[in-house]
Amino acid sequence: MAPTSETLTAERILEATEEVLRRHGPAKATVVDVARALGVSHGSVYRHFRTKAVLREAVTKRWLDRTSERLAGIVSDGSGPEERLRAWLAALFAAKRHKAGDDPELFATYTVLTDENGTAVGEHIADLTSQLTRIIAAGAGSGIFTAPDPAAAARAVFHATGRFHDPCYAREWTAPGIDEEFTAVVDLLIRGLGAPR
Amino acid sequence: MAPTSETLTAERILEATEEVLRRHGPAKATVVDVARALGVSHGSVYRHFRTKAVLREAVTKRWLDRTSERLAGIVSDGSGPEERLRAWLAALFAAKRHKAGDDPELFATYTVLTDENGTAVGEHIADLTSQLTRIIAAGAGSGIFTAPDPAAAARAVFHATGRFHDPCYAREWTAPGIDEEFTAVVDLLIRGLGAPR
Repeated sequence: MAPTSETLTAERILEATEEVLRRHGPAKATVVDVARALGVSHGSVYRHFRTKAVLREAVTKRWLDRTSERLAGIVSDGSGPEERLRAWLAALFAAKRHKAGDDPELFATYTVLTDENGTAVGEHIADLTSQLTRIIAAGAGSGIFTAPDPAAAARAVFHATGRFHDPCYAREWTAPGIDEEFTAVVDLLIRGLGAPR
Repeated sequence: MAPTSETLTAERILEATEEVLRRHGPAKATVVDVARALGVSHGSVYRHFRTKAVLREAVTKRWLDRTSERLAGIVSDGSGPEERLRAWLAALFAAKRHKAGDDPELFATYTVLTDENGTAVGEHIADLTSQLTRIIAAGAGSGIFTAPDPAAAARAVFHATGRFHDPCYAREWTAPGIDEEFTAVVDLLIRGLGAPR
């Protein structure tokens, strides 16, 4: 049953946009492509997304937000700060690895889109580092970590773990030994954050 | 004066290959292109490099070795291990940043070549991490660092600083704040390596 424009929510348009991207790659996903996939007029889509650029930015943001939302639960899960930091970094790596491994073509498509949408990526990174900041601040508050500036420490931890979340390393994520590499880097960072013993 | 095949050393062929790459990009630099640039027969070039693949790997290795050679002096410069580690990481970042910034097209060309030449890149990384291992082992020996396995610690430090030497981050190297980011990561790693105080 073709949906009517009454039922056309932004979320439904973004779902259809992702489906168009999955089938046709990053060159597609214009407003017209998406309207055709939904069986609606392009005017109906334009009411939600004024331009192709706005649509592509929104679908990119939705894709990135799926990762942040999975991680948000860990930030306040009640475990100790070191355990939470390890769990959060492992979950970030796992989420990215799944995205890259489960549907490599869609991942490649979104990598093109993230290159185009610096603002969405910047917000995503700000979101992730603010989650990290809360964990590190909790550790500093309880004397487990030494971090006079938890936000700066969070950015350093995020940058130092790029190998395990930045899409440019996606090819490495299936290499033998990558889990040991991850653990070695995280151990070193946890020791670096640690209060003097 | 066109050189004769008598004076044709491997090094002269590699210089000419780099010049061909600089002018024409990564699609060029076949044995025939290079022979033409040198004004010699392609047979003379084949005597040094059996195939295009061997030639391209050799020119990639030469480019990568230029960085390792610059850094090798720091490994045994006689300063304290922490100072040496900081100097070495800063020199690696500076060398990569220069390569990317001084001649962006040649850098992009070599990025294509390094993607093709996994073995040369693997050897380069092994070379760099063995330099790092020597510095960290010296620090562990003098009680400044705690590193039961200096080679593993060196790999972790190398991976944690990828943002400041991996070509996939070249775009970030001119961003404001990148030097502060570098210092924050290195400080965290040095603390992580540090002996308990």
